Amino acid sequence: MLMKQMCFSCLFRQGVEAAWLLTDDSQKREAIIRASGRLMAEADFQRTPPELGRELHSAIREILHDPDPYLKIKRQMNAITNSIKPLLRERIRSAPDPLETAIRYAIAGNIIDFSTFDSISEAEIVKTVEKAANQPIIGLDTAKFKSELRKPENKTLLYVCDNCGEIVWDSLLIEELGKFVSVTAAVRGSAVVNDAILSDAEYAGLPALCRVITTGSDVPGAPEAMVSEEFREIFMDSDLVIAKGQGNFETMQPAKRSILHLFMVKCPVIAQLVQLPKGTLVGQILPEA
Amino acid sequence: MLMKQMCFSCLFRQGVEAAWLLTDDSQKREAIIRASGRLMAEADFQRTPPELGRELHSAIREILHDPDPYLKIKRQMNAITNSIKPLLRERIRSAPDPLETAIRYAIAGNIIDFSTFDSISEAEIVKTVEKAANQPIIGLDTAKFKSELRKPENKTLLYVCDNCGEIVWDSLLIEELGKFVSVTAAVRGSAVVNDAILSDAEYAGLPALCRVITTGSDVPGAPEAMVSEEFREIFMDSDLVIAKGQGNFETMQPAKRSILHLFMVKCPVIAQLVQLPKGTLVGQILPEA
Repeated sequence: MLMKQMCFSCLFRQGVEAAWLLTDDSQKREAIIRASGRLMAEADFQRTPPELGRELHSAIREILHDPDPYLKIKRQMNAITNSIKPLLRERIRSAPDPLETAIRYAIAGNIIDFSTFDSISEAEIVKTVEKAANQPIIGLDTAKFKSELRKPENKTLLYVCDNCGEIVWDSLLIEELGKFVSVTAAVRGSAVVNDAILSDAEYAGLPALCRVITTGSDVPGAPEAMVSEEFREIFMDSDLVIAKGQGNFETMQPAKRSILHLFMVKCPVIAQLVQLPKGTLVGQILPEA
Repeated sequence: MLMKQMCFSCLFRQGVEAAWLLTDDSQKREAIIRASGRLMAEADFQRTPPELGRELHSAIREILHDPDPYLKIKRQMNAITNSIKPLLRERIRSAPDPLETAIRYAIAGNIIDFSTFDSISEAEIVKTVEKAANQPIIGLDTAKFKSELRKPENKTLLYVCDNCGEIVWDSLLIEELGKFVSVTAAVRGSAVVNDAILSDAEYAGLPALCRVITTGSDVPGAPEAMVSEEFREIFMDSDLVIAKGQGNFETMQPAKRSILHLFMVKCPVIAQLVQLPKGTLVGQILPEA
């Protein structure tokens, strides 16, 4: 999905918010605002929003002389979701349809955002997630998806992760998926905003559950032209692909193969695109383009 | 008030919105986005938001080769408020306190914004304005203000206007004020966004009610360093000064004299500054700094 009108304002605003979130140094803040402006003044607009996001966050890392300025925040996000992981695993196990419940929690994990994480109590998170997890997943026929997972020709599944925090709950879904197929999980190649990287996959316990690879790129998404050869091969060779979150949805369509996109609608642009309100849990199987 | 964190995002967003509002030409849209980015990359941030707003809208006018790109919108805003003017005048006349009622409508006129004007019916406007006009005016003791107006030493009042649309209702307040003092109304020196200029003052019938001058500047506000010598003299020599709207509030403080600021709180930055929620009608007399 190429940059839409509101994506410009949203990206610039992300830069401004990063300036205040990541440093107290007024000169660095000013440098981040100016770099965000320069990005808008000079960037190639015929790109997806996460590709410009990559440029923005690359500039921020450079200004702050910090390869991973969101590290502390990412660790807090992981710790928050991890604290509720045993509860959610128990709920998934005792649910009438564990796979569907695991999908709900994995999508609902998207609600733990770094913009809200430090003003929200664990009890509030449980409540918010419970609410989200009791919504229908629009577009997904779980029974049909389960029958896909059971087909003997479907042996492998690539699961493209999105953010920190939710990756801990992705691991619960990957546990369920592992009962049907051999899973490979992919995280970003290096730190970009709050996206999950290898160390987060390790924190979430993924290496014990599945093979873990990276996209080979620091785009907060997985656009074909920017991922590694390894990722591209596994993406094409896997029998099934799940892509989590908006960043993957924005960068992986149109695709050379079918993908099950699982995400929560988090912005008005995506809401308009999928014709569903913000907050909707979406499970959309998009065919090969 | 110098640029605050959210002002950066808000100004850039105004540029993006202007790009889509004012032209269908994709090259011009792109040029406006890039110019808005350049402004953020290169501007002097030790300024008030309306001063950067002036630079933004100056760039937009240049890109569009149009000295007044909001002209059509401004005319629509004026037409909308004008259509309800007789009704409001009647209500003011029959009110127990005509001056206070006129102040309420003048502030409430601020609600007619170009971002909403074309999706809103006349009935809805009446309803919204009625609601706004029934709120208290926080900070203003109207009885005390009226006694100020009645003091024999207070003979002249400068009324600094803000936007189109509301200027039509400002004229109703100026009618009331004219019963006590000799009023001079000031509009912007030339077109900038939807701010009122001389032609709008004429549309609102101001020349029949009072002397009309301009700030001599295209800032959507009236910062001391950028207004004309004429404005500055009248500003200092008038016995009383009323300044309408946020743009004047942001640029006229601190001031070398006391000013009665009348505005509706329209953004989170001003809400934070005055410690009142968005939508509040404010009447704040700020003393000489």
